[in-house]
Amino acid sequence: MSGILDRINGPADLKKLSARELPLLAAELRDEIIATCAANGGHLAPSLGVVELTIALHRVFDSPRDRIIWDVGHQAYAHKLLTCRRDRFATLRTLGGISGFPKRNESPHDVFDTGHTSTSISAALGFAVARDLKKERNKVIAVIGDGSMTGGLAYEGLNQAGHLNRDLVVILNDNEMSIAENVGALSSFLSRTITNEFVHRFKKEMEGFLEGLDGVGQGMLKVAKRAEESFKGLFTPGMLFEAFGFEYIGPIDGHDIGLLRETLEKVRRFDDAVLIHVITKKGKGYRPAEENPSLFHGVGPFEVATGKVLKGKGGGASYTAIFGETIRKIAGDDERVVAITAAMPDGTGLAPFAREFPSRFFDVGIAEQHAVTFAAGLAAEGLRPVFAVYSSFLQRAYDQVFHDVCLQNLPVVFAIDRSGVVGSDGPTHHGVFDLSYLRHLPNMTLMAPKDENELQHMIQTAVGHDGPVALRYPRGNGTGVPLDQAFRTLPIGKGELLRKGRDGAIIALGTMVGLALEVAETLAAEGIGLAVVNARFVKPLDRELILAMAGETGRLFTMEENVLQGGFGTAVLELLEEEGVEGVAVTRFGYPDRYIEQGEQPELRAICGLDAAGLAAGIRSAILGLTAEGS
Amino acid sequence: MSGILDRINGPADLKKLSARELPLLAAELRDEIIATCAANGGHLAPSLGVVELTIALHRVFDSPRDRIIWDVGHQAYAHKLLTCRRDRFATLRTLGGISGFPKRNESPHDVFDTGHTSTSISAALGFAVARDLKKERNKVIAVIGDGSMTGGLAYEGLNQAGHLNRDLVVILNDNEMSIAENVGALSSFLSRTITNEFVHRFKKEMEGFLEGLDGVGQGMLKVAKRAEESFKGLFTPGMLFEAFGFEYIGPIDGHDIGLLRETLEKVRRFDDAVLIHVITKKGKGYRPAEENPSLFHGVGPFEVATGKVLKGKGGGASYTAIFGETIRKIAGDDERVVAITAAMPDGTGLAPFAREFPSRFFDVGIAEQHAVTFAAGLAAEGLRPVFAVYSSFLQRAYDQVFHDVCLQNLPVVFAIDRSGVVGSDGPTHHGVFDLSYLRHLPNMTLMAPKDENELQHMIQTAVGHDGPVALRYPRGNGTGVPLDQAFRTLPIGKGELLRKGRDGAIIALGTMVGLALEVAETLAAEGIGLAVVNARFVKPLDRELILAMAGETGRLFTMEENVLQGGFGTAVLELLEEEGVEGVAVTRFGYPDRYIEQGEQPELRAICGLDAAGLAAGIRSAILGLTAEGS
Repeated sequence: MSGILDRINGPADLKKLSARELPLLAAELRDEIIATCAANGGHLAPSLGVVELTIALHRVFDSPRDRIIWDVGHQAYAHKLLTCRRDRFATLRTLGGISGFPKRNESPHDVFDTGHTSTSISAALGFAVARDLKKERNKVIAVIGDGSMTGGLAYEGLNQAGHLNRDLVVILNDNEMSIAENVGALSSFLSRTITNEFVHRFKKEMEGFLEGLDGVGQGMLKVAKRAEESFKGLFTPGMLFEAFGFEYIGPIDGHDIGLLRETLEKVRRFDDAVLIHVITKKGKGYRPAEENPSLFHGVGPFEVATGKVLKGKGGGASYTAIFGETIRKIAGDDERVVAITAAMPDGTGLAPFAREFPSRFFDVGIAEQHAVTFAAGLAAEGLRPVFAVYSSFLQRAYDQVFHDVCLQNLPVVFAIDRSGVVGSDGPTHHGVFDLSYLRHLPNMTLMAPKDENELQHMIQTAVGHDGPVALRYPRGNGTGVPLDQAFRTLPIGKGELLRKGRDGAIIALGTMVGLALEVAETLAAEGIGLAVVNARFVKPLDRELILAMAGETGRLFTMEENVLQGGFGTAVLELLEEEGVEGVAVTRFGYPDRYIEQGEQPELRAICGLDAAGLAAGIRSAILGLTAEGS
Repeated sequence: MSGILDRINGPADLKKLSARELPLLAAELRDEIIATCAANGGHLAPSLGVVELTIALHRVFDSPRDRIIWDVGHQAYAHKLLTCRRDRFATLRTLGGISGFPKRNESPHDVFDTGHTSTSISAALGFAVARDLKKERNKVIAVIGDGSMTGGLAYEGLNQAGHLNRDLVVILNDNEMSIAENVGALSSFLSRTITNEFVHRFKKEMEGFLEGLDGVGQGMLKVAKRAEESFKGLFTPGMLFEAFGFEYIGPIDGHDIGLLRETLEKVRRFDDAVLIHVITKKGKGYRPAEENPSLFHGVGPFEVATGKVLKGKGGGASYTAIFGETIRKIAGDDERVVAITAAMPDGTGLAPFAREFPSRFFDVGIAEQHAVTFAAGLAAEGLRPVFAVYSSFLQRAYDQVFHDVCLQNLPVVFAIDRSGVVGSDGPTHHGVFDLSYLRHLPNMTLMAPKDENELQHMIQTAVGHDGPVALRYPRGNGTGVPLDQAFRTLPIGKGELLRKGRDGAIIALGTMVGLALEVAETLAAEGIGLAVVNARFVKPLDRELILAMAGETGRLFTMEENVLQGGFGTAVLELLEEEGVEGVAVTRFGYPDRYIEQGEQPELRAICGLDAAGLAAGIRSAILGLTAEGS
């Protein structure tokens, strides 16, 4: 089946193929990508969309001498298959396998790690400037989607890149959507559905110009007036990029390998900043993905023949779904509630809210900074904005959380999904820093529910609180507990004692509460009696309860799905120091000070000692002086 | 002298003035602003530039019903004088006085706090959307400088604001520079110095269009070809904003009150998104500021008659100057070193580097995110980029520090100026979070010098290190120690024991080392013997030395100019927990979990107990059980 791909051991082999073989190669690449994603899950639609582009890039350019930088990087599967990783491609996104994103430590063809959006132009400019300073000669190519182009970082990069005008190629991969439908003026501009005002304005200016040309101009004017529709065609997307100092080429068909090769060959001989506008279809070549590119953007395992997505493992509804349903219900009773997403209406569970309250729902595009400052503006006018966002993407808006929300003590709710390890997306996507980057901000209230039922009450609590609140919850399904129909407001800064014990107390946060109870049960059978506290709040801490536990047992164990540096357990250490409590032994369990690779969530937790066995061993060791395993 | 201003007790009074009185009012406002800045220091040039605009805004609109949002906010002095704060204006930027930026808790006319750039469009959109949801009617006006427009956040805001097209006024205050000379393609576009390629392209498109019009078109073509120069005039800056969905008006003279009023009156009746392009002169009306707007952007006390800036207080050269001189020297020996600033060549001390190595110096504009990712690209190609940036502005690039630098373990040096409290700029500008937001990132090396001589060695150490390094130093003058001529590489993760003592050990960081020695001296006279360690590194900690001190004295005091949550002292607590060290009493000194207001640096440190008296009292209290004052 894979006759041509079998002969490709690197980009050089691609150059030996005939023009006729290239579309066949594209088909083989698609088959391989579809099969692997069906088994492992992955970013299917983005990768299918750029198969021809990837072939053309590697045929024309000379990677790794020429640097290809993939924005976000979730579209790089064909690139991986063509650059000596076919033998390992079946391990895509699995523990110890190859990454779903470019990784410098995986291949010399991956020149820059990505995972978050909008970085490629800035990085490519760095590569180009370094090349020029070193007086070397090679091409630098950034491949960026139209969705990524809405991120402010891309604009900052574009602004300087156009200005410096180095030898640099930016390929705008325009599939008219990023993850969800694209939003914003840029999108309209790219798709040429520019406003009537714009055309009107141009017409006026044009008329003024023509009128100024005396007799001849007057004649032209009449023609121009009749040709109003034609004016629209004048405003190519190219004007925007040329205004920024780029040479613009396009738009061209991103599935026509011949045209792509021809264009890239031409561009290879340029020596200034060029933007090639390529139109592609997301999911191209696999009908279910073409028809539902949002579902197949990042998808779990599915059946190839039907495109039917296979069900995830057990437990209750996902935290995401419970969040979405809860905020929809609360919004029905509280008109102040508005919801914001940065291009993730489905991923964050806001789609039902959006359907029911379209005028109170805002998809700002891939623009987390703007999402937060926009929310601050809404809150300053008395509304209760809820920004639903993945933990690792909120990192983009750290300064806005500080400057626009916390400093003004505005009631913005950050519904932080994908906290903790997220699984196969790996280190760019793990949400293991949020407690550490949010906890030190004055005015912030920070909490995490022990299960999906408590999540409901925490959302209610957050929306009712007169200040900024961040609540974090993990990727995946809840524990399956019954869901209360009525939402309660929890007392801010109060945890709950779930179990008593004399030999020590576990102060657990969020997802770790269930594990803590399990571990306490296990150790009780061994004669170790442990109290278990559901902390609920990282800030403010339940000082009273934690100090009482410290006093009663003399030994605390903290458990969190966050790095140990500056997180929840650290807050407990700070509390003891502030109160001058001495003689209490504390052992913290959390993620270590290194980047955690990809894998299934349970695998990753186990590696980091955050499974029942690891935690039990750690506690045993602390209490009995035994050597802990895996902690 | 202030005849008219005396009659202004709020914007309503402004409406009673005759058109003739308005320019006189402008002159009075300027006198007041100049006099106050001469005494207190302040953002003189930006505020002088918008005096007429401020008058026109308050004359035409109805604040606070209509919301005026000042981007950055350093230009809001006239606004403050016109909105009931004249009596307190002499307290500008002083402890307990009025802020140099808009503050919601200061006046109902300050509807949104600012201090960092590029937030106003996003916030204003939030205000406008909230108004519409509440079915209220008022105008929302964002005033943003052309410099702020280079920040990605502004673009993200523009993109959605144009798309939603709410009743919203954006005033682009174009003074052709922000703090330093403006950079980037946007700037060229605004000043109409657009590239020839752009004009050429348009001509070609135009020709194609005209050719398509058969006979008549051919005739027009000839005229068009002769009129090449005129085409340039067609490309108004307005096209960019209209492409983004804004109605565009301008450019207009921002010092012509009549024209401004007329324009604003017209715009007041619109009900969609409008951008008014206003051209102003920074420093307008005060010759020294007009001639040197960069110096008078944010200036210390000066002599009004001459514009001569008064000398700061004692000590050695500033940390900023030593940094600039050191990196310039190192760059002479090491070709890999390149330097980056985000619109702060003077403020960060990079100006001498820029003069000596113009091809290795990059001012990216107000674009911290891009600065970091660009640096990562440079580092990936083997260079040693040094990004010199203020602590609170690096917050904008937290995700890029994580994603593009630390995750890839790239050798980027973050030279973090203005760490600790900065003084009169207040809470938006204090650099008291950097240890907390950087310490938890794996691969990061984090250090702070005890004085300007050690700063030299730390820069040398950072440039030589094969991974990300952040080094932080304060605003202001060094201690005046002699400067070594030869730079040394310090061992990573090693502190130095400066003084021995049996009753406890102070582990001090950066600026606190000198104070620690002073306090130890004081307490020695009282019979308390304290060891003093210069920690140098926050990450990695000198575990060995700190543990030795803990073992020898049983009592540690940590001192840092950072918030106590997640900072340096916390790292020491974590170390003791990790090592299972029990029975060591730790007392941490640092900034509290609240926003610190404006004031002189020594005043603020004293309020937070971080002066010699406060620290001594705190230590006495810990050791002798006395009540501490001010800690």
